[in-house]
Amino acid sequence: MTRSAGLAVVAALAIVFTAGHVAPPASAQAPLTSGGPVSPALLEDLAAAYRVLANEGVIDGYGHVSIRHPGNPNRYLMSRSLGPALVTPADIMEYDLDSTPVDPKGRRSVLERFIHGEIYKARPDVMVVIHSHAPSVIPFSITQVPLRPVFHMATFLGGGVPVWDSRSVNDPDAAALLVRNGVMGRSLAAALGKKPVALLRGHGNVVVGPDIPLTVRQAIYTEVNAKLLIAALGLGGPVTYISAEETAAVEKNPGDIARGWELWKRQALGK
Amino acid sequence: MTRSAGLAVVAALAIVFTAGHVAPPASAQAPLTSGGPVSPALLEDLAAAYRVLANEGVIDGYGHVSIRHPGNPNRYLMSRSLGPALVTPADIMEYDLDSTPVDPKGRRSVLERFIHGEIYKARPDVMVVIHSHAPSVIPFSITQVPLRPVFHMATFLGGGVPVWDSRSVNDPDAAALLVRNGVMGRSLAAALGKKPVALLRGHGNVVVGPDIPLTVRQAIYTEVNAKLLIAALGLGGPVTYISAEETAAVEKNPGDIARGWELWKRQALGK
Amino acid sequence: MTRSAGLAVVAALAIVFTAGHVAPPASAQAPLTSGGPVSPALLEDLAAAYRVLANEGVIDGYGHVSIRHPGNPNRYLMSRSLGPALVTPADIMEYDLDSTPVDPKGRRSVLERFIHGEIYKARPDVMVVIHSHAPSVIPFSITQVPLRPVFHMATFLGGGVPVWDSRSVNDPDAAALLVRNGVMGRSLAAALGKKPVALLRGHGNVVVGPDIPLTVRQAIYTEVNAKLLIAALGLGGPVTYISAEETAAVEKNPGDIARGWELWKRQALGK
Amino acid sequence: MTRSAGLAVVAALAIVFTAGHVAPPASAQAPLTSGGPVSPALLEDLAAAYRVLANEGVIDGYGHVSIRHPGNPNRYLMSRSLGPALVTPADIMEYDLDSTPVDPKGRRSVLERFIHGEIYKARPDVMVVIHSHAPSVIPFSITQVPLRPVFHMATFLGGGVPVWDSRSVNDPDAAALLVRNGVMGRSLAAALGKKPVALLRGHGNVVVGPDIPLTVRQAIYTEVNAKLLIAALGLGGPVTYISAEETAAVEKNPGDIARGWELWKRQALGK
Repeated sequence: MTRSAGLAVVAALAIVFTAGHVAPPASAQAPLTSGGPVSPALLEDLAAAYRVLANEGVIDGYGHVSIRHPGNPNRYLMSRSLGPALVTPADIMEYDLDSTPVDPKGRRSVLERFIHGEIYKARPDVMVVIHSHAPSVIPFSITQVPLRPVFHMATFLGGGVPVWDSRSVNDPDAAALLVRNGVMGRSLAAALGKKPVALLRGHGNVVVGPDIPLTVRQAIYTEVNAKLLIAALGLGGPVTYISAEETAAVEKNPGDIARGWELWKRQALGK
Repeated sequence: MTRSAGLAVVAALAIVFTAGHVAPPASAQAPLTSGGPVSPALLEDLAAAYRVLANEGVIDGYGHVSIRHPGNPNRYLMSRSLGPALVTPADIMEYDLDSTPVDPKGRRSVLERFIHGEIYKARPDVMVVIHSHAPSVIPFSITQVPLRPVFHMATFLGGGVPVWDSRSVNDPDAAALLVRNGVMGRSLAAALGKKPVALLRGHGNVVVGPDIPLTVRQAIYTEVNAKLLIAALGLGGPVTYISAEETAAVEKNPGDIARGWELWKRQALGK
Repeated sequence: MTRSAGLAVVAALAIVFTAGHVAPPASAQAPLTSGGPVSPALLEDLAAAYRVLANEGVIDGYGHVSIRHPGNPNRYLMSRSLGPALVTPADIMEYDLDSTPVDPKGRRSVLERFIHGEIYKARPDVMVVIHSHAPSVIPFSITQVPLRPVFHMATFLGGGVPVWDSRSVNDPDAAALLVRNGVMGRSLAAALGKKPVALLRGHGNVVVGPDIPLTVRQAIYTEVNAKLLIAALGLGGPVTYISAEETAAVEKNPGDIARGWELWKRQALGK
Repeated sequence: MTRSAGLAVVAALAIVFTAGHVAPPASAQAPLTSGGPVSPALLEDLAAAYRVLANEGVIDGYGHVSIRHPGNPNRYLMSRSLGPALVTPADIMEYDLDSTPVDPKGRRSVLERFIHGEIYKARPDVMVVIHSHAPSVIPFSITQVPLRPVFHMATFLGGGVPVWDSRSVNDPDAAALLVRNGVMGRSLAAALGKKPVALLRGHGNVVVGPDIPLTVRQAIYTEVNAKLLIAALGLGGPVTYISAEETAAVEKNPGDIARGWELWKRQALGK
């Protein structure tokens, strides 16, 4: 499976499926139009991403995952406010890129959805956004020690991992630390730049990518790499980081993405 | 859900329910009168709090949780001596604020219940008290390193975390470390002051709050914050703590309390 | 429950029960006589001790637990060579204090049973012996840093924790690290002296006590205390240890032993 | 059970069993001939090895285990590309020592199978090869701190643990870190030399041995020893390592291999 095959297939199927949990009635006068029905398989994979990341210890009770709508790049899909380990396809809501719900039906949205909308605006290449409080990552956001790759499964960190500080934003909500509005979200998206991962000081990280399996894998191995680096730095002495040449070489050929995804899904959904 | 809505609703309902595990017979000649029947939903939430905290690794076999009686501020409710992961509503007992059981029916009380009674006396605002041996917290009680917030989910620690030392109490039981009587409990309550969390040197902590979901959340994130701070200090160099301004801003708007509580309850009770 | 009540009751009952997995036929010509039938409840508790210690992360695949025979102080009871999480009452074998099986029936004994026999010889007060590779304890056996109590649940370590080094024994098997014979066992028992815990350099520890619930608890909290001390030492600066006065005060009144034991048993056997 | 008894028995049985998942039809014109049918019990043990190592936290989603074919030393057996916790006997494929599948039947091979083939070429004594990303081991591959034994279950590390760096290989794929071809595999096998364990810089390790139970045990205790050494080095001061004399003594008499294997299998397969 190539990196983008999963979503490409789904996009092709999207116009075929008609049943959809997030599609408003055809005659609705809603101010926002839906991106259209979404394949049940994709919604299942999105729900699975929440459960996988919870099961692998990457997200606690307050993380979230979104995908760009396969039928409309100006919409994204994300669970209502719900503990990640509980998410099912029926919990997925649709948003425009200002993070306004298309048809909330009384469901509560997560406060920090602006992380997702603003990154989708700034990064047309991004199809998946993950926000977590990954525990081994946070120490690198509150010290001067950079999170750099030391593990061959985390070469994607080789271009550097920006640390965004909410205090740097000129917004009345900045002191409250959460990304509660578009101004905060745009600032975070700018800090992320073209990278796959950025840290939020004293908070967590965002991991972005082209499809669910690869992005989930990168979220998992960002956490693993952070844990390995903490241990290595504790041993003392110089640390051998992954080189720029190695990052480039692995990016050309990222290996077997499907193996991990299938495993993690089976383990998370089998519980 | 606002912070106090849960208990407020319960207090309103308390006079409606008549079946109660802790209510003495109407004709009893017990020296202590009960605060009256308590809603089954509140007793279920209290039992759930024990199980959640055990499941999340915050309390070991010897922690306990209490709530102030919704019908009488001079009574509180707490499980009999029992491993936290086993507590059910039927195990809840009622105490006056001197920590004398209202109607023990032969059930064994926990030795350190005076922690709870004395805090309820000293802090009319407190509706929930949690005592744990949270493992990442204890190192901060036996070193000179202060437990300070570094994580946006633990801003409530921003006002400082007092460390109480049992040796400081002028009581014959002081050397035995446990809070076995009212003198010890009053000393601890005085050390806690108006704070939400205090550490007990070489022992654990107390976490207090206005309702079960928020207080459980604060107990969980006190432990998480301690773990993050241990890792950050291990990396070396200056640590960026949560600022006083940030603590104040988050306190005004603590975010989505219900999401975590529902998740943790499902995971703890589903086992 | 006082510390010795469990075994005392069992000893009184032992002459009543007649069915016993380890009792040889009345007419057997075995060179060793059995200490007699043992109460099923005691055998169940011994099997439970293995499972509890495995479930709590104290023993890996190679730990073992024994009890002195309630009917004959010159016999002890221990599982055949079997992974601790799998032990049932049917796996318990009987040994004399030279660690010769009374009636092996083809069952394989653990190599290091001499730890148990020699401690029972040297310590008439000891009724239970636990040997584990408790992971947080071992670092204190391979450095110069003493394992001292910092936690109120581990005051029993206050008299000091000897470290025994197998290399110190004048025995042809000494370099092989295991306690494979009586000479090695006697050396270890001498190093233990009158203490409740001793470390084996590069190997693990032994924890001894008067009954199963208390000794299991001490094995669990020795590991917890070691973990807390590792974290505290990592924070740097002076560490506040439990004082001698505190050790003495807690030893007089060790608190509620039954609560932990009932919980751990339920959790280990319910799996 | 002696070290090689397991495979010896299986080799004797291999000519008896006729059903085999990997045997090509008798009349096949495949360029590679199979080593012949393999006992179901051996295939079950190989699948169990994957699951045990996953369950014990030694391999993540991307580790693999192989055995030399009992009927032909120029063939080896390994799972298709699949999450280790999911492997069953039906997933086992056969390879020649150039790591070409004998009869792939459309199944996907793991990219790094050359690790296995090249070690079997270089080490006629090796019957089992394990490759993992064991997390506590990796810090020793990215620092100058040598992984040395401190635990009596890891004396086999006493002869030294080489660290192989993929960058040292003169191959166009060297920068991609993975062992994707025979050149990379031969370089790793040369670095391993006659040792039981080698580390791959920023990647993981290989553990080799004479049969499944012992090699799995060595993979598990390599990880445990690394964890213990990290903790001991964190405590500071001189560390007492296992001596050369101790390594030699234990190697002559490695103790009870079967106990761990039976336990780990039961725990991994019972899930």
